[in-house]
Amino acid sequence: MRLNRFMIRPLVEAGLREELNAGDTTGGFLVWDDDPVLTGQIYAKGSGIVCGLMFSEETIKLIEPEAEVEYCVQEGDPIGPGTVMLKIRARASTFFMIERAALDWVQQLSGIATKVRRYMDLVKHTRVRLTDTRKGWPGLRMVQKYAVRVGGAHNHIFNLNNCILVKDNHIKLAGSITNAVAILRARAQHTNKIEVECETLEMVQEALECKVEVIMFDNMDLDEVRAGLKLVNGRAITEASGGVNETTVARIAETGVDVISVGDMTHSVRAIDMSLDVKDIKPSAQRTIQRLKTLASS
Amino acid sequence: MRLNRFMIRPLVEAGLREELNAGDTTGGFLVWDDDPVLTGQIYAKGSGIVCGLMFSEETIKLIEPEAEVEYCVQEGDPIGPGTVMLKIRARASTFFMIERAALDWVQQLSGIATKVRRYMDLVKHTRVRLTDTRKGWPGLRMVQKYAVRVGGAHNHIFNLNNCILVKDNHIKLAGSITNAVAILRARAQHTNKIEVECETLEMVQEALECKVEVIMFDNMDLDEVRAGLKLVNGRAITEASGGVNETTVARIAETGVDVISVGDMTHSVRAIDMSLDVKDIKPSAQRTIQRLKTLASS
Amino acid sequence: MRLNRFMIRPLVEAGLREELNAGDTTGGFLVWDDDPVLTGQIYAKGSGIVCGLMFSEETIKLIEPEAEVEYCVQEGDPIGPGTVMLKIRARASTFFMIERAALDWVQQLSGIATKVRRYMDLVKHTRVRLTDTRKGWPGLRMVQKYAVRVGGAHNHIFNLNNCILVKDNHIKLAGSITNAVAILRARAQHTNKIEVECETLEMVQEALECKVEVIMFDNMDLDEVRAGLKLVNGRAITEASGGVNETTVARIAETGVDVISVGDMTHSVRAIDMSLDVKDIKPSAQRTIQRLKTLASS
Amino acid sequence: MRLNRFMIRPLVEAGLREELNAGDTTGGFLVWDDDPVLTGQIYAKGSGIVCGLMFSEETIKLIEPEAEVEYCVQEGDPIGPGTVMLKIRARASTFFMIERAALDWVQQLSGIATKVRRYMDLVKHTRVRLTDTRKGWPGLRMVQKYAVRVGGAHNHIFNLNNCILVKDNHIKLAGSITNAVAILRARAQHTNKIEVECETLEMVQEALECKVEVIMFDNMDLDEVRAGLKLVNGRAITEASGGVNETTVARIAETGVDVISVGDMTHSVRAIDMSLDVKDIKPSAQRTIQRLKTLASS
Amino acid sequence: MRLNRFMIRPLVEAGLREELNAGDTTGGFLVWDDDPVLTGQIYAKGSGIVCGLMFSEETIKLIEPEAEVEYCVQEGDPIGPGTVMLKIRARASTFFMIERAALDWVQQLSGIATKVRRYMDLVKHTRVRLTDTRKGWPGLRMVQKYAVRVGGAHNHIFNLNNCILVKDNHIKLAGSITNAVAILRARAQHTNKIEVECETLEMVQEALECKVEVIMFDNMDLDEVRAGLKLVNGRAITEASGGVNETTVARIAETGVDVISVGDMTHSVRAIDMSLDVKDIKPSAQRTIQRLKTLASS
Amino acid sequence: MRLNRFMIRPLVEAGLREELNAGDTTGGFLVWDDDPVLTGQIYAKGSGIVCGLMFSEETIKLIEPEAEVEYCVQEGDPIGPGTVMLKIRARASTFFMIERAALDWVQQLSGIATKVRRYMDLVKHTRVRLTDTRKGWPGLRMVQKYAVRVGGAHNHIFNLNNCILVKDNHIKLAGSITNAVAILRARAQHTNKIEVECETLEMVQEALECKVEVIMFDNMDLDEVRAGLKLVNGRAITEASGGVNETTVARIAETGVDVISVGDMTHSVRAIDMSLDVKDIKPSAQRTIQRLKTLASS
Repeated sequence: MRLNRFMIRPLVEAGLREELNAGDTTGGFLVWDDDPVLTGQIYAKGSGIVCGLMFSEETIKLIEPEAEVEYCVQEGDPIGPGTVMLKIRARASTFFMIERAALDWVQQLSGIATKVRRYMDLVKHTRVRLTDTRKGWPGLRMVQKYAVRVGGAHNHIFNLNNCILVKDNHIKLAGSITNAVAILRARAQHTNKIEVECETLEMVQEALECKVEVIMFDNMDLDEVRAGLKLVNGRAITEASGGVNETTVARIAETGVDVISVGDMTHSVRAIDMSLDVKDIKPSAQRTIQRLKTLASS
Repeated sequence: MRLNRFMIRPLVEAGLREELNAGDTTGGFLVWDDDPVLTGQIYAKGSGIVCGLMFSEETIKLIEPEAEVEYCVQEGDPIGPGTVMLKIRARASTFFMIERAALDWVQQLSGIATKVRRYMDLVKHTRVRLTDTRKGWPGLRMVQKYAVRVGGAHNHIFNLNNCILVKDNHIKLAGSITNAVAILRARAQHTNKIEVECETLEMVQEALECKVEVIMFDNMDLDEVRAGLKLVNGRAITEASGGVNETTVARIAETGVDVISVGDMTHSVRAIDMSLDVKDIKPSAQRTIQRLKTLASS
Repeated sequence: MRLNRFMIRPLVEAGLREELNAGDTTGGFLVWDDDPVLTGQIYAKGSGIVCGLMFSEETIKLIEPEAEVEYCVQEGDPIGPGTVMLKIRARASTFFMIERAALDWVQQLSGIATKVRRYMDLVKHTRVRLTDTRKGWPGLRMVQKYAVRVGGAHNHIFNLNNCILVKDNHIKLAGSITNAVAILRARAQHTNKIEVECETLEMVQEALECKVEVIMFDNMDLDEVRAGLKLVNGRAITEASGGVNETTVARIAETGVDVISVGDMTHSVRAIDMSLDVKDIKPSAQRTIQRLKTLASS
Repeated sequence: MRLNRFMIRPLVEAGLREELNAGDTTGGFLVWDDDPVLTGQIYAKGSGIVCGLMFSEETIKLIEPEAEVEYCVQEGDPIGPGTVMLKIRARASTFFMIERAALDWVQQLSGIATKVRRYMDLVKHTRVRLTDTRKGWPGLRMVQKYAVRVGGAHNHIFNLNNCILVKDNHIKLAGSITNAVAILRARAQHTNKIEVECETLEMVQEALECKVEVIMFDNMDLDEVRAGLKLVNGRAITEASGGVNETTVARIAETGVDVISVGDMTHSVRAIDMSLDVKDIKPSAQRTIQRLKTLASS
Repeated sequence: MRLNRFMIRPLVEAGLREELNAGDTTGGFLVWDDDPVLTGQIYAKGSGIVCGLMFSEETIKLIEPEAEVEYCVQEGDPIGPGTVMLKIRARASTFFMIERAALDWVQQLSGIATKVRRYMDLVKHTRVRLTDTRKGWPGLRMVQKYAVRVGGAHNHIFNLNNCILVKDNHIKLAGSITNAVAILRARAQHTNKIEVECETLEMVQEALECKVEVIMFDNMDLDEVRAGLKLVNGRAITEASGGVNETTVARIAETGVDVISVGDMTHSVRAIDMSLDVKDIKPSAQRTIQRLKTLASS
Repeated sequence: MRLNRFMIRPLVEAGLREELNAGDTTGGFLVWDDDPVLTGQIYAKGSGIVCGLMFSEETIKLIEPEAEVEYCVQEGDPIGPGTVMLKIRARASTFFMIERAALDWVQQLSGIATKVRRYMDLVKHTRVRLTDTRKGWPGLRMVQKYAVRVGGAHNHIFNLNNCILVKDNHIKLAGSITNAVAILRARAQHTNKIEVECETLEMVQEALECKVEVIMFDNMDLDEVRAGLKLVNGRAITEASGGVNETTVARIAETGVDVISVGDMTHSVRAIDMSLDVKDIKPSAQRTIQRLKTLASS
């Protein structure tokens, strides 16, 4: 699902307050006497899939609600060096204040979307579904997962309340998969599937007998995954996880597993380079210069 | 400078609330009747430079102030597969709740520190100072820059109030470097140096005549940098920026430039893989299982 | 799952700041010169199921971290007039400040737990699962749903991200249940079941053909529910909703439906009366009285 | 006094963020490709006094500031099954996101206003003033008390800084009513009246001698209240409190007491059922369906 | 009433975050390798009445909960050059971080308390009560009014919900004092007195006929105040306001008016100079120096 | 640099919430039935330099975004009794709610700007630069420093991250100025100058040898300052601090020192008196009065 301005506002506001602190020293003094309305654009210097344009817009609008922002591309579009993404009309002071924050959001989010798209291309000859994990920067999960969707992959769970995911430590505490599933079936919401992380085929077998809806092959090698799939034989959704990277993902997908969850798409990301260009600025600090000269000669 | 628990608390708390939302479904129901105190450890699966241990500790302490956390390594230490970093004594429910958030901070911050250390090694035969930029995830600048320090590099400016940094758009608005510097000298704090981003040698010359303290060679090639250095001849701190990566950094450093600022150290980072292992969990959900059986047979 | 102090703190703090505003006029001036440590207790005046003791404790501890709070009953225990629930040792000023906020949480949450328990008793001769809905006071959903669990019922979904719940307006927008389910299967998390709200048997039939995991009989009468159950015949979890109250719930449960979701348990609640009693206060305002007399006679 | 959007915004925003969490899974994916502007209405299914319409409007406007909301009834108007309260023009995604939060505010607040109106009707043959207490959900006092005003009753104090209210524990600490009043007259604001909670006629007598402005008959039976009124004889405002419910309120009012404070009006409330109906939705997910079919056949 | 740590924490925390921003550059790098525990003290350089010690303590404890703070004087005590107020035991880094924030609170609050005490001395030969107004820095009213109490004067109202204060614009809107009072008696809380700001004796007369509890002589000269007092003749509390300063206050008090409200005590304040002295610091940066030398010679 | 609405909003909002609390009792009940749009103005009663008009505007706009505010003077203009500063068109309820908060900001900030201007006039025959310090009210530094700029002086550092300022305690910890500077040069940002607080000429000498950029003569008398200047002889920026007041500032400036930092400009300020006047209010509470009469006669 898409995000909206309400949802991203607290994060965008935090980014701006971090950047502004008590004010913009350089830009702020240069526009002290005159703050002209200018036009500018945000454009790409690197290549990839664009994501996060609304974050730039919201950064600008928080500073200057009357500023105008025109979208030249849409979320998920491919971009390359020179692609203009946003055209902006705003005061000089606004451009000076928002430059870094407005660019950083799109650079980082596009970095994720671009990597995700590359992963998607690697498995497009299969029917596998790629998902993210919860790995990445804490506090920014909503936006990292949004970039995954824009890149074309799916989301795995959002937080500890969004799924029933039984892991090794849970199983140890419960005594067995069977016990854990019994407790969770009895107590947890009836609307969630139960997923069990299985490290061995024995665990897969036990999980199957518990009729869990999703079985994760956790850090299994390709042969184990294939054996696991045979065992499951369509009685549960299967998911492979652990050690997935751009080199291995295709072969894992080719096993026929239903889902592959990939931490690498969010925890290790290369930003896409972008820049903000202000057009046709005419020198407007003349009044200031004049006043300083008068002072100097007095 | 180091961070402390007070400084990181708002970020750590945000990360935890994102993860917990309205509660931990899986873990929470498994410990409903019995929540034993357990021991566990956070250890490395990948290799690199560790950073962010205090974030894990604070994540744990926010949930359970009485939990015990022992540091087995120090910030900036090298780690490899199997290196135990933190030993933890806490309730089962705490382990279940904090796992992802506690790991994510260290994984991402160590990712930065590790990359920074690699950059440092590439230029250790020179006297250059490497600094970060403000590029990276908005809202997390304080922690990203902390990881840069732990990795051994220096920080460039923190925000728009932390330095006087004259960029191309400022110059256009002011009419010239000379004008911009005159205004800023007249109005901005006397405690900050003025740095000017120069794209040409003419700009370097003008900046020098304005007696600015720091001159940035912005996106210049090696020959231009060398020419710039000759022009400056020790009359200002020199800084190279733009297009710096692990392939190019050594050669730039060898020109003798004083500072190289590198966005790549914070905007494009590979996380270091880590894991949380809970030790010797004895099944403690028996009371729950028993109760469920009773219910089932009634 | 249980809540913990970290999770409830923001709500408890908001309740306290609302009550204190800029200070406690009455209590605050009476203890201006002397603020003795006293003992007291929170006890029931009405009857029901207790819930929310930790909210009282946290209210007290936020004001005076050194205060001592002893639990005399456990969450979910039955209470009646005179049942002592918490014994407290704290400063007089603390008792004066926390009284209303500390009581209100337990009164309201116990009100929910008590109503839930009554509902549970009405259906205990069946195998039905009772759940809440999202109805109730906005901003307090986490605590309202917690009280439902303490009362012995189950939770339905927590928020719009916690389940896939297809309602009439969704179906209209998609064109059909079939379309809606196709889109959601293709795009939403693989870990969530899909529930469809069906108002007619035709809708039940279409949902079944889409193989959705949960089918809600929305505002159907008993005959329709029975017909629906026959149609479903174990191929999906069945849920009845709409028009459920203490008069109707047993008969609905006796149809054999799997789940009944009941808004009434959280949106219409009678608080359980409670009181705070401070013990053995010895007059300690004598110093103040004496000083006032001196002033008056001067 | 009325509330305004500024005053309710933090609460409305909290309600929305609770509901949205990281996004609307069901609605969000259905409008991914196309998000049409629709009309809809909020209407009553139960009967009562309407309260809280501004909360619905603010919920909608926070998501979509351009949405249009038309009021068909005013705060305090009687409503019954089918009464349309608000007409809305907004995007499909907005309707999906705000439904529950927008309804919950009005359902709960109307529940209070409705109960208050019923109480008012029970005493309309007397000259008594009915007030609320501070009982109810912590953190929502401002809105609960607003609903009391809309229902036609009056507010008692808002918080510990809004009145001087001397209770039993205060009296014990001070040594006597006389002492407590002396201290408070000497130190507290001259703009507040002093109210003393009296449990016996002796206490009433002492409070009278202290010339306090308001005397509360705390948990007294009707005969005691009458004796108290005789004793006071117009020398103070009299207030009855404790054990007030819909059965007893009229007889208490008939004693001639000036004020009756009623916790029941806010702590035990039945919500008024309401619904959101979106009109004339034309299927608009066709683009999505088409794309999925293409994918499926590829 | 006194404040407590819970009440002041949000303000103290805001002060600290403002000061620290992303870290303490100077102090932070000096203690990078070694952060010794030191003792120090906060002492006065100017003279006055001390107020706000708890704000210093809380500033320290927020950074280092284990730090020890010993009070050498109490709130409201007179201090002079050299008076030690707090003894502190904390890490060097804590001293460096908290110095300015910890001092500023006490300097400013003591400035208010000192001025208030001077006012009190000017009227001690009368029975007048001095109160503050709501004038001063927005957002800090709670603490400014606390300093007024510590200085020995009384508080006037805290906010718009803390009293019924009828001003000229209210009267114009209502049509007359009589109208305004009738509406407010009918609708506002029965626990608040009504105060009317009267600019003429005619207004005083009308207010008296409405039996309001407090009559303010607003910006009247001494003769008018005396005439007003004669008119009121004990039938209401009288309050003089407007144009009160250290020159005029005694004469106003000598008229026999009950209350004088003085904006000057909070809106125009001279801080009391204070200083933080760290004792017996032994050089502990040797490890750092040594390491730098090694680096330099490498 | 100027502030903008985004930067001041959190402070303005806090001021308003403090004032409104749960509502405006007096004004709120008077406009219950009718809330006319009125015009009014904020004008000066005292004399000085105006500062903070945007804070008044933002206070008004937060309550009523549609209100109109017209500026009659600009920041930094001189004002005197009767000068109209803002013309306002807003609802009666808005005027009643915002009066105190809207005035307080401008009164206090103009107080600072006015004092600063007076200081500036005292040194205008010299070339000295006057700066503030960090002294004043915690949490309001951004706005206090803004008023300093409006008054015509310069800002010194904003926080601990905004400069390298070596103080006596730092020097003690490092062992010497030389050590401290060595560490800070090696580790701190290359974009900041180093300033050292020197209490003796020996310290000045050592600081000079370390080539620090700014040397503060800390609490030196005039002779020492002159000796220090001779010693420095243009090799660093010189700054005098300590014991600066309106009596001494001119003589200090006449020594030829480059900068004088003055805590007095922000920590000890006299507010400028201002008032809000609502024009041509026609009684509009007639409907309310009529209704009350009907009730009274019923």
